[in-house]
Amino acid sequence: MKAFSEKYDYLVLTRGPNLAYAVGMPDAAGLVVELGTGYSTLYVSRLDYTRARNTARVDKVVAIASAEVPPRRPGEELVVAPGFADVVKKLSGRIASDSKELGVDVSGEIAELRAVKDEWELGVMKEALAITESVYMKLSQSRLVGLRERDVAALVYKWFLEEGADGVAFEPIVASGPNGAYPHYRFGERKISHGDYVVVDIGAKKGVYCSDMTRTFTLGGGPVLRDAMYAVYEAVKAAERVAREGAPAAEVDKAARGVIEEYGFAPYFIHSTGHGVGVEVHEPPRLYLTSKDILKKGYVVTIEPGVYIEGVGGVRIEDMVYIDGGAVVLNKLPHIF
Amino acid sequence: MKAFSEKYDYLVLTRGPNLAYAVGMPDAAGLVVELGTGYSTLYVSRLDYTRARNTARVDKVVAIASAEVPPRRPGEELVVAPGFADVVKKLSGRIASDSKELGVDVSGEIAELRAVKDEWELGVMKEALAITESVYMKLSQSRLVGLRERDVAALVYKWFLEEGADGVAFEPIVASGPNGAYPHYRFGERKISHGDYVVVDIGAKKGVYCSDMTRTFTLGGGPVLRDAMYAVYEAVKAAERVAREGAPAAEVDKAARGVIEEYGFAPYFIHSTGHGVGVEVHEPPRLYLTSKDILKKGYVVTIEPGVYIEGVGGVRIEDMVYIDGGAVVLNKLPHIF
Repeated sequence: MKAFSEKYDYLVLTRGPNLAYAVGMPDAAGLVVELGTGYSTLYVSRLDYTRARNTARVDKVVAIASAEVPPRRPGEELVVAPGFADVVKKLSGRIASDSKELGVDVSGEIAELRAVKDEWELGVMKEALAITESVYMKLSQSRLVGLRERDVAALVYKWFLEEGADGVAFEPIVASGPNGAYPHYRFGERKISHGDYVVVDIGAKKGVYCSDMTRTFTLGGGPVLRDAMYAVYEAVKAAERVAREGAPAAEVDKAARGVIEEYGFAPYFIHSTGHGVGVEVHEPPRLYLTSKDILKKGYVVTIEPGVYIEGVGGVRIEDMVYIDGGAVVLNKLPHIF
Repeated sequence: MKAFSEKYDYLVLTRGPNLAYAVGMPDAAGLVVELGTGYSTLYVSRLDYTRARNTARVDKVVAIASAEVPPRRPGEELVVAPGFADVVKKLSGRIASDSKELGVDVSGEIAELRAVKDEWELGVMKEALAITESVYMKLSQSRLVGLRERDVAALVYKWFLEEGADGVAFEPIVASGPNGAYPHYRFGERKISHGDYVVVDIGAKKGVYCSDMTRTFTLGGGPVLRDAMYAVYEAVKAAERVAREGAPAAEVDKAARGVIEEYGFAPYFIHSTGHGVGVEVHEPPRLYLTSKDILKKGYVVTIEPGVYIEGVGGVRIEDMVYIDGGAVVLNKLPHIF
């Protein structure tokens, strides 16, 4: 905030993850911070007014109404304007914003602020991950054979919410047998059967923070996927040994990719090794071979190598890691069930 | 498409709902249609390549790889580029696009195309709504008293997926007792108890199409909410009588608002009467007092008046309506359980 206050009079954030990060609520229309005083005003739809007053970390909440809904509820602070941009147009002064339409674009600086998690944020993310892990425990104790992929996804949703999640960080992936060959597969009608490897990639949300984790359940399977499992497991471990404060993200990718290559699976590891997680499930930094990012203390990143073989299946293992002197693996569960 | 082909050489759509509408798959990077021939090429991440080949309604699928992941899988058509925008830059000719960075902005025309549903789209939306209604039936046959709001939301997710939904159109709203006063409330820890009104606003997704429906369960309740229920019910009926091909959207809103006003609840109906539904759960047209939209044959819109009283609770009833000579109510379930 200090960096902004020297050069600008206002910080203006627009609807989306930056705003959710700043105020702890996902649905607001916009935020104006007077940088001299730090005074913050959140603009919301009238539908979100009371919820914002109760939950948003701001000094003041103002509802925006278009002209067509005139009556005012008791105590409601209301401005009649077509939208948040019109509110911002009335400010006079130098404006920093995450929207280049509304001010000087400082979205890069905000992304950097968001990438470094403080203790409170880390705590919330650990809570989100704990919910995710409790669902993996339940899955590992369930009979998966005979369930459709969508039945497993249904259980994941149900258990997430029952265990206290505020939502999902992303739609669950339950990719069984040959469907495991598609990294972005979601779930379908296929019944899980003996011999399958089942890639399960899920994440609960707590507050506005995401978790992201993958395990591959083995219900038999042939020698190719068994080798792939060991390759991916060793790749995770290798990457986690390299990840630390000051390490180039590219080196972490290289460590994972090197192991996969040794096992002969190089052409089948078709994505990057990981990414930052926070208010968004994918956010900076990015861990791939030509990434210029350097890992900093406070980053939370995924380590998630995988092997995908068309017609056969797939394996992915994904941990969440906090960057410090070394990589602090936030997951408590084993890598291979 | 014909309207575009007379003035442009290419139609370029970017990641998001327009692209999902065009090809039936939500995650692609971009689409290029040669308007002269109609030949369509979809650009996707390598992670989505096979899924796109199997599911997208296009002539050709090309994977985009950044330089850092060199190996090519058998049969994979690959272009090495930083992103879809770089692919578009190499086109020579007049480009119409839903991104003003990539061509002449025709997003308004595309929104209009999307608003009018053809028979196939209507069929898919009916399937989505049928799943949503089956979950309402299960809820109405369940004992809600004693469940936390989040337990109900958990059941909704589970039943949606078990019944064949491909996802949710939006996060479920389960707002019990006083929480019903906040139209955008999601769900929380509150236990549902005797005397509550419980606003349940949920929608299953089928393919890339949304459904959107609200019913308010009554577990007792005082005279104020009982009156509100009748007001909202009558408002729904009044709006559905007015909605038809050629009717101004504002008239539909006026019809609902008039009823609510007669009942004395005008200050408590703090949102518009409805909105279009399709690939997005909120899309044009908009049904509010100063809307300029005229209802056309093929529109699918919601009719969803509500009353929200702080400290007391809320009532909302929401139907989906197909616009024809009259309003064809797509819901089969009763309005008051």
